[in-house]
Amino acid sequence: MDNDSLGPKAKVKEDSEMSKEEKLSRVQEDYESFLQTHTGRLLKVEIEDCPNFGDKAYVEFDSARTAIIVVDMQVDFCGKNGYVDVMGYDLSLTAGPIKPIKNILEAVRDGTDIKVIHTREGHMPNLADLPYNKLLRSKIIGKGVGIGDKPKGGEGQLLVRGQKNWNIIDDLTPVDGEYVIDKSAKGAFAHSDFGVTLKKLGITHLIMTGITTDVCVHTIMREANDIGYWCILLKDCTGATNQENYESAIKQIKMQGGVFGWVTDSNKFINAIKDGFNN
Amino acid sequence: MDNDSLGPKAKVKEDSEMSKEEKLSRVQEDYESFLQTHTGRLLKVEIEDCPNFGDKAYVEFDSARTAIIVVDMQVDFCGKNGYVDVMGYDLSLTAGPIKPIKNILEAVRDGTDIKVIHTREGHMPNLADLPYNKLLRSKIIGKGVGIGDKPKGGEGQLLVRGQKNWNIIDDLTPVDGEYVIDKSAKGAFAHSDFGVTLKKLGITHLIMTGITTDVCVHTIMREANDIGYWCILLKDCTGATNQENYESAIKQIKMQGGVFGWVTDSNKFINAIKDGFNN
Amino acid sequence: MDNDSLGPKAKVKEDSEMSKEEKLSRVQEDYESFLQTHTGRLLKVEIEDCPNFGDKAYVEFDSARTAIIVVDMQVDFCGKNGYVDVMGYDLSLTAGPIKPIKNILEAVRDGTDIKVIHTREGHMPNLADLPYNKLLRSKIIGKGVGIGDKPKGGEGQLLVRGQKNWNIIDDLTPVDGEYVIDKSAKGAFAHSDFGVTLKKLGITHLIMTGITTDVCVHTIMREANDIGYWCILLKDCTGATNQENYESAIKQIKMQGGVFGWVTDSNKFINAIKDGFNN
Amino acid sequence: MDNDSLGPKAKVKEDSEMSKEEKLSRVQEDYESFLQTHTGRLLKVEIEDCPNFGDKAYVEFDSARTAIIVVDMQVDFCGKNGYVDVMGYDLSLTAGPIKPIKNILEAVRDGTDIKVIHTREGHMPNLADLPYNKLLRSKIIGKGVGIGDKPKGGEGQLLVRGQKNWNIIDDLTPVDGEYVIDKSAKGAFAHSDFGVTLKKLGITHLIMTGITTDVCVHTIMREANDIGYWCILLKDCTGATNQENYESAIKQIKMQGGVFGWVTDSNKFINAIKDGFNN
Repeated sequence: MDNDSLGPKAKVKEDSEMSKEEKLSRVQEDYESFLQTHTGRLLKVEIEDCPNFGDKAYVEFDSARTAIIVVDMQVDFCGKNGYVDVMGYDLSLTAGPIKPIKNILEAVRDGTDIKVIHTREGHMPNLADLPYNKLLRSKIIGKGVGIGDKPKGGEGQLLVRGQKNWNIIDDLTPVDGEYVIDKSAKGAFAHSDFGVTLKKLGITHLIMTGITTDVCVHTIMREANDIGYWCILLKDCTGATNQENYESAIKQIKMQGGVFGWVTDSNKFINAIKDGFNN
Repeated sequence: MDNDSLGPKAKVKEDSEMSKEEKLSRVQEDYESFLQTHTGRLLKVEIEDCPNFGDKAYVEFDSARTAIIVVDMQVDFCGKNGYVDVMGYDLSLTAGPIKPIKNILEAVRDGTDIKVIHTREGHMPNLADLPYNKLLRSKIIGKGVGIGDKPKGGEGQLLVRGQKNWNIIDDLTPVDGEYVIDKSAKGAFAHSDFGVTLKKLGITHLIMTGITTDVCVHTIMREANDIGYWCILLKDCTGATNQENYESAIKQIKMQGGVFGWVTDSNKFINAIKDGFNN
Repeated sequence: MDNDSLGPKAKVKEDSEMSKEEKLSRVQEDYESFLQTHTGRLLKVEIEDCPNFGDKAYVEFDSARTAIIVVDMQVDFCGKNGYVDVMGYDLSLTAGPIKPIKNILEAVRDGTDIKVIHTREGHMPNLADLPYNKLLRSKIIGKGVGIGDKPKGGEGQLLVRGQKNWNIIDDLTPVDGEYVIDKSAKGAFAHSDFGVTLKKLGITHLIMTGITTDVCVHTIMREANDIGYWCILLKDCTGATNQENYESAIKQIKMQGGVFGWVTDSNKFINAIKDGFNN
Repeated sequence: MDNDSLGPKAKVKEDSEMSKEEKLSRVQEDYESFLQTHTGRLLKVEIEDCPNFGDKAYVEFDSARTAIIVVDMQVDFCGKNGYVDVMGYDLSLTAGPIKPIKNILEAVRDGTDIKVIHTREGHMPNLADLPYNKLLRSKIIGKGVGIGDKPKGGEGQLLVRGQKNWNIIDDLTPVDGEYVIDKSAKGAFAHSDFGVTLKKLGITHLIMTGITTDVCVHTIMREANDIGYWCILLKDCTGATNQENYESAIKQIKMQGGVFGWVTDSNKFINAIKDGFNN
């Protein structure tokens, strides 16, 4: 294999010969260019545990390129006789984020240009899009009652599109101008229109909320992060089927300087909205 | 929207009218059909913590459709002056799985038809495939020395293809007949030939090993699981930059009846190989 | 970059040292192994213009791993006041394949284990999943009436899910046990559950039908072929908005030994079904 | 299924109640906003055969968000003893675009901020990423000498990474600051870092060049178009293994108001560069 097989020499090599002062001045230039070209309001959000940044760290971004992602706030994941209930988990954990998410949506719906995208997990009635591993494991944990089955007292087949238990809960029903993406997987990018929709809307920053923290929310953050989306998790706007998994999922995000994004909470984000929009 | 908008009535509805006995007999039929059509040896592996299965649970699968995935066992993740070392993490945690992985590879290389696929994380020399979020965070945690930079005492640019620190460590060097997949992301399916290679080889079961448990290994398991691959993590063949993250990553796999797969260890898997191949 | 950077030496190199006789005997072995392990009936289909194979060439495959793909046979593409009609194209071209597809479906529904997958192109009512380029071009060709608009005399918004014009035409309505995949793109793999469904069903061979030949059918064949699916187009079961495009699309498939698959027709495929199932 | 199952009412419905004048004024506003926020130079390119636009149509876009894509200008596709030569096709057709591409690259390299991305098709030495269908067909058309084989008089294995015949031809060698993407497929988005790189660079417009028109160039345009990239093919900068396929591939692009993009030529694009950069 000849020397050029990895492609041309890169600008980055020249960069490595730049002095620290030159580099910092270029970062400063980029920041000033951003301040001039953002098309929405500037959002400045305090984040937690950012290493090497002293007491407090802030992230700034453009409201016009920001989307709140509300992951799977369906009856199946936080309501009675839904999928999580049938698996035997404590609903108070997955229902916990409902109120904080509601607060966030109210702040966003009050005259901002921040986009709202809801996701729904669910399968075709004939389960064509349900891999066997997911089906089998749902039957194991549900003692024979898994995805596609209608539990005793339930309103429909678990995790099936069009069933009442598949609906987003009343408290968080999408309103006109918001977006809803259906997905069959835990993640959202690989087999749905989620990525196409983000691209069309010109989104660069994802504000992550919803359930469950360690499964769907984390998988979507991982997918988004691998492509270059900037993700910020609102930790009180998310919940898991197990408190320890919730906490460890948040800790995992912060490793390696924020390997999957940043963490903050709903109050800090609402403050940033108020400041940005002078509300 | 008319009633048929979700597609035709499904066979699964008929299924829901089947008796439990009919269902179990169908499962039994499928199992017997599998026993007749597998083309390699039958591997029977004991897994841990499978709910509702009493003291012990076993998973059976076809050696000819099984691949050992060795994730990112590169100098950058477990060697001196590599990426993880520069970030300041304890190398003993990520180097811990080297010996157990070596044992697994020896067992597999001893006359079995199990495939071995190594992955390598790395970027083009000009960082074209490195999203800014990943670059920035690596500089934050590394106090200015991030991906693409050459650290003091290091042998090359961190996480850059073709550099010595990017190589798979000597102890686990791939041998003839094994596969190596380069990836720029934490995951492996979205932007590399990993999925195409699995499909070509006819793989259905992935035996997961490598580093780090909570980042790359977990992301690949999540992607694989969403598509329908059966994943089994060998817990002593993997490590994280933090012991608590290692443990919580394993716990997360087991939730919901095994939401991301199953967990076992190298000894149990080597025993299954010995039994299957009469070694 | 050291010599091993592309991975281990390959079995294929040994292959290149095999004699032609050894290679042919290995192909023969593989074929005999296939004859023993197929789980459905053997389908033997005559294909056209296969270079270097003399007068006639045949392809053999397993009915249990075969799916008929019926692409976008919706009112929007072949019915009055649908999308193609509003763009001003001759409906007789896209409606032409209806009868041959009906014949194929009848043959398949008559006791075979061949799967049937219908696709539907369509967008969310708020066009979240409609890229601007596609929207703009539909307005250019439709003189201002594009995707999402309701044309004069039409029954609903063009190419929008849930509208009557978006339905599959009555003649080809899916029946119980068949599958329907919704997609927003011309292709089907990148943003829908099509790939997951094929994988779940264990499909290896795609029998392509539907409209339009040069746009959606061709794009799906290209995607499928890049992953390793074997595609066979039934040329009388497909049509385009322009006869010349139809013919050139078929010619393109056959280049380079079948760069996107093989071509045959409905009669030849029905004959293969009759032979395989002794009907 | 309840009425809301497709998601919230959309802004687009309100749009359909807007008058034509209101709509046009909104388009005008968007255009003026674009004129203020583009960060590079404005490129205004004449395109051909745009329906309903009278004698001439122009497309305007931002140089800073534009990339020239040079597809697979490798020895294997246009040089002696490469893959296309071994298949028996006329090299003058695929070598034809070399000079016009060279002209484009010279214009772009002369002080513009337009990015250049080269792609290379090729496989791992052990063909792990080569689906069997592609291998088989290459052997059929090459009379037994296919991908991975070394032809008589050739310099290496056909279409294998690291071989001399896999290199980009000398006339079009990438220079410092340009990008090179390796891909195993005809398309570029599904299994490579192409999409991640475009996203990182902030690209919205792709200027397509390279070979072959009907296979790789067309597949990449289809993938790009489905995601929302604006594609413009420079028709004299591309070629096919067959003149008729070249012409029909170009015609297919223009259908339906430009279903896969727009078409122009190198002179018109170079003029747009000269005007935009006052060269």
